[in-house]
Amino acid sequence: MLVVMHAKATSSEVERVCEAIRAMGLAPHPMPGASRTAIGITGNRGTVESASLEALEGVIQVIPVTRPYKLVSREVKADDTLIQLPGGSSIGGEALCVMAGPCAVEGRQQALRIGRAVKAAGATVYRGGAFKPRTSPYAFQGLGREGLEILAEVRAETGLPIITEALDPAGLDLVESVADVIQIGARNMQNFSLLRRAGQARKPVMLKRGMSATLEELLMAAEYILGEGNYQVILCERGVRTFADHARNTLDLSLVPAVQRLSHLPIVVDPSHGTGRRNKVIPLARAAVAVGAHGVMVEVHDDPDRALCDGPQALPPEMFQDLMDQVRALAPIVGRRA
Amino acid sequence: MLVVMHAKATSSEVERVCEAIRAMGLAPHPMPGASRTAIGITGNRGTVESASLEALEGVIQVIPVTRPYKLVSREVKADDTLIQLPGGSSIGGEALCVMAGPCAVEGRQQALRIGRAVKAAGATVYRGGAFKPRTSPYAFQGLGREGLEILAEVRAETGLPIITEALDPAGLDLVESVADVIQIGARNMQNFSLLRRAGQARKPVMLKRGMSATLEELLMAAEYILGEGNYQVILCERGVRTFADHARNTLDLSLVPAVQRLSHLPIVVDPSHGTGRRNKVIPLARAAVAVGAHGVMVEVHDDPDRALCDGPQALPPEMFQDLMDQVRALAPIVGRRA
Amino acid sequence: MLVVMHAKATSSEVERVCEAIRAMGLAPHPMPGASRTAIGITGNRGTVESASLEALEGVIQVIPVTRPYKLVSREVKADDTLIQLPGGSSIGGEALCVMAGPCAVEGRQQALRIGRAVKAAGATVYRGGAFKPRTSPYAFQGLGREGLEILAEVRAETGLPIITEALDPAGLDLVESVADVIQIGARNMQNFSLLRRAGQARKPVMLKRGMSATLEELLMAAEYILGEGNYQVILCERGVRTFADHARNTLDLSLVPAVQRLSHLPIVVDPSHGTGRRNKVIPLARAAVAVGAHGVMVEVHDDPDRALCDGPQALPPEMFQDLMDQVRALAPIVGRRA
Amino acid sequence: MLVVMHAKATSSEVERVCEAIRAMGLAPHPMPGASRTAIGITGNRGTVESASLEALEGVIQVIPVTRPYKLVSREVKADDTLIQLPGGSSIGGEALCVMAGPCAVEGRQQALRIGRAVKAAGATVYRGGAFKPRTSPYAFQGLGREGLEILAEVRAETGLPIITEALDPAGLDLVESVADVIQIGARNMQNFSLLRRAGQARKPVMLKRGMSATLEELLMAAEYILGEGNYQVILCERGVRTFADHARNTLDLSLVPAVQRLSHLPIVVDPSHGTGRRNKVIPLARAAVAVGAHGVMVEVHDDPDRALCDGPQALPPEMFQDLMDQVRALAPIVGRRA
Repeated sequence: MLVVMHAKATSSEVERVCEAIRAMGLAPHPMPGASRTAIGITGNRGTVESASLEALEGVIQVIPVTRPYKLVSREVKADDTLIQLPGGSSIGGEALCVMAGPCAVEGRQQALRIGRAVKAAGATVYRGGAFKPRTSPYAFQGLGREGLEILAEVRAETGLPIITEALDPAGLDLVESVADVIQIGARNMQNFSLLRRAGQARKPVMLKRGMSATLEELLMAAEYILGEGNYQVILCERGVRTFADHARNTLDLSLVPAVQRLSHLPIVVDPSHGTGRRNKVIPLARAAVAVGAHGVMVEVHDDPDRALCDGPQALPPEMFQDLMDQVRALAPIVGRRA
Repeated sequence: MLVVMHAKATSSEVERVCEAIRAMGLAPHPMPGASRTAIGITGNRGTVESASLEALEGVIQVIPVTRPYKLVSREVKADDTLIQLPGGSSIGGEALCVMAGPCAVEGRQQALRIGRAVKAAGATVYRGGAFKPRTSPYAFQGLGREGLEILAEVRAETGLPIITEALDPAGLDLVESVADVIQIGARNMQNFSLLRRAGQARKPVMLKRGMSATLEELLMAAEYILGEGNYQVILCERGVRTFADHARNTLDLSLVPAVQRLSHLPIVVDPSHGTGRRNKVIPLARAAVAVGAHGVMVEVHDDPDRALCDGPQALPPEMFQDLMDQVRALAPIVGRRA
Repeated sequence: MLVVMHAKATSSEVERVCEAIRAMGLAPHPMPGASRTAIGITGNRGTVESASLEALEGVIQVIPVTRPYKLVSREVKADDTLIQLPGGSSIGGEALCVMAGPCAVEGRQQALRIGRAVKAAGATVYRGGAFKPRTSPYAFQGLGREGLEILAEVRAETGLPIITEALDPAGLDLVESVADVIQIGARNMQNFSLLRRAGQARKPVMLKRGMSATLEELLMAAEYILGEGNYQVILCERGVRTFADHARNTLDLSLVPAVQRLSHLPIVVDPSHGTGRRNKVIPLARAAVAVGAHGVMVEVHDDPDRALCDGPQALPPEMFQDLMDQVRALAPIVGRRA
Repeated sequence: MLVVMHAKATSSEVERVCEAIRAMGLAPHPMPGASRTAIGITGNRGTVESASLEALEGVIQVIPVTRPYKLVSREVKADDTLIQLPGGSSIGGEALCVMAGPCAVEGRQQALRIGRAVKAAGATVYRGGAFKPRTSPYAFQGLGREGLEILAEVRAETGLPIITEALDPAGLDLVESVADVIQIGARNMQNFSLLRRAGQARKPVMLKRGMSATLEELLMAAEYILGEGNYQVILCERGVRTFADHARNTLDLSLVPAVQRLSHLPIVVDPSHGTGRRNKVIPLARAAVAVGAHGVMVEVHDDPDRALCDGPQALPPEMFQDLMDQVRALAPIVGRRA
């Protein structure tokens, strides 16, 4: 259910509606927008008795939400969500977001060198894994806490906000204390405990689509996060599993307009994991910007052949510079700035 | 690496080899078999200096393991793993394992009624979810702790061992304290923190294949559990995501012989999730037994239309009786007992 | 639309209804069944004026068909279609059909040797390709006409009916003149000209499911054949394309009960193409029989390593004998004879 | 095998090499390029005795081709293939090719109206189906011969070259006599007889990727056409079958750079079939141009709700105008003209 408030409803009117909802044993989620404030209601199994709410000051109407997801839906919040990051960059608006950096933080010098390079080329966010989910228990699992400290140093030196992945609730505590954006990886898209914990975080969360997740499942996973009160969620398409063998995954760019139709959340594209092949990253990054994504996430490494993780898909810094030049030229055509 | 011991090697000889391995900073995993004891070595990035180990008493040879997974491999343990459960049932041997019960424990009476029915029909393990992973945050999430207490009652009354799912480390503590088998669901197949925690449990673990997991990824996920010292792992095929729309998932029965060739771990099949349609469960359960699976897992509900979860795939008790009659007739033909 | 006739309707009553349908510019398809004769009507875009038909002698009622396919549907013909082959074997009834032989006819001696072997082991139909659809234009394309002559010899010597593939209308003329069953391969499942030509043939047709065909597309493809007047159609599941890499294709056994619910046509399973791996053919053949398929199609070669086509999935004759022994033991449990 | 000739080799030297190849019982395929002429050799099962060819005038060397496909490969022809169409448009070069028109030709007026509209908006080729492959035998199958005549009229009036689909050898004769480009649809990608017939045509052929075809299978299918002597082939990505349900197919744009690396053939993208949803066609058309495709194929209809075929994916003319404006702005950034 959704309570639609008058454009001029006061904040105390909004609060009174929220109290009334709480009094029914339900949870109110006020979503302020440019032209109106809507209050999502969760916790109800059936219909909410709407007459008593409609009688309150400032309420226009109480309407049912027709989608299985609610808070992520454009029905509840018509305006695009814009996420502001420290240092002035943002995700979800006119400015194209470019997250770049190594798959894994391998050491202080490596992380800083790559940080300087991507900053110089025009990246707006630095990415780097401190905790790495690896198919094999015998593969490099990341530097952990030490990796987080290095990330903080990269931020201090470059001024770039940091995004890094959390794998479990304990790790999320650590990541939240350092990162500017918390990443939930594809393998954890339906790790509902982790999603709930991310929903309690006070930092934005980037949620990657699972390898065989439908659009509805992705939106529902995001709903877990919003349902806990964290409305700062970015979605990420990173390729799905198919029979096709010319790339590591099949990048599904049609997800971008599909998300934008149904949800107010920003969506970015990861052409590095999406293709798994260095020579396809730039063309697919161009395509991602052209299709209308709010940003791209790209792996950059200054010695890809010796990378501890995903070397074959990492761009050397000069290729990343080339990528930036190309997406910068493209962005204005789709109404973005880069 | 793998240390192969003489058939007549004594346990103190085995222990001396383990100590030598630990002294190298590595982890020994003794895997006793019918004809020999092998000791898997994990923790090495490169080659282990094998000469010093080969010089020890009781050692035949030290051989490299050629697969990316080690402990789950038949190279390391040639004999099938047999998992004994309380009450005399087992998984992995001649006896066909039939796990049956409701998708979710909905209440004491429901759980007990279904428990009596599946016991009477010949089930060997009772299944029922106390913690339910649900695509939607607004769907029934299980009774939690109370559900576990009910499961313990069902066991007390029916004598059937209990399998139930754990969704996160905290839940696993609770599940481990009650269940006889801990289930890790498809969505968590690559939740590596949870796998590690399951590897520290002292109860058998059933690991379901992820919706788009390859055989190698499934075996690697199991390797995470064995790598922590828990060798009691059962694999489960439950259908994969494809374009096909006549069933909820596409049950991939060829996984069964594929696993059995490469691994010593038992594998069971879940035709309920694998098809998602009541009318296909019995034919696919027959096929699962015929293909050589060590068991099947089936959802049974005595009022499927009102089930809080997955009603369309639940069998009413009389259909489950029919299923049992059919698989009992089939089992001897593939060398099993039911 | 479907005209349902009285059980005791005479053949001249049926013929009079057919004439009335033709007079409307439509096509009648009489489908005699055990308990009633139904007459399918095709050619209508909208509704047929049914009152005039219902007024005819012997007509019970005229009912709309709710599925997009008509003639293949159980609504139109409730009884299973049973296809009689020369020499007394059949497909679609109690007797399990086992089609066996080489992927391609490579020569007279090879074809005869394998023919004797599969006959001795209990096969009921001989398979062998004279025209081979090959991914590469440079691969062996079959012996063509000469291959058909060899197939006729195999039949003469073994008494087994012959199934072989037709790739195009010209080839279908040749195949029809020799074969007992005309095979349409997976790559041609939606080659609608070929399907129409097969519908004009006076021999049974086996239609293999396309590599990514849905159930509805498969039934629609069969409808093309029945629509031309050939009601002797057998469907075949041979595996679909997925991300899974432990087998060449993913054999989708749930298609068997799904087809049997919706259609009266027999369905067989090809575990050779379905897995592409010799070591998986026997387990999956067992599963196919257990799931309820009317038969299996298996590739047999007496020198698989030198086979000109698909050697890795061919069984040597002794393994085929083993397969026969196993499916013979299984068949009675699912109500079949082998 | 591939014979590489000197840049200055004369045409009679080339002809003498071809004769020598024919004398070996093999087929020569001269492929003139900007910097050299190469002569592909097909028909050999093993190695060709190359010494005698290397001894001929004008030959630099004879080298093996390492890919399973030969004539489509960049190894054999390094330069991009440029296909010239009547009226001055082309496919494969700097000029972006935009094929637009209705799914099916429904009538003279409809076809002409849409033709004028797409010409005015800037399309370079007119598309329209006269023979339609339809999943259902009861769906509109196209106007056939009459449709071809209408297409000729559209060309006469608009000056646009025509592309239309051929479904079988008989239809290809008709299509070849009228069309400027012969289309082979996704369902026929491995209809090898039809591919061979297309290879004998004297018109360019556009080959659409099958719904679950790998890159190698697509290139092999094209090789069938080139192997018959028709080197004027355009490839087309039109989406593949996956589990994803927010679009009719999953458009696989990574195929574009993958093809361009391995083959000299042009590749275009069909975002209409690739998404099946009107609201996704423009974003994906932009992405297709940005990824580097040589063109796009778009369905346009001036009354989509009444279209006899694929209405939900057709753009009304004003949306097509919008698409043209957007791709025109994008094209220069990827080095194309539109």
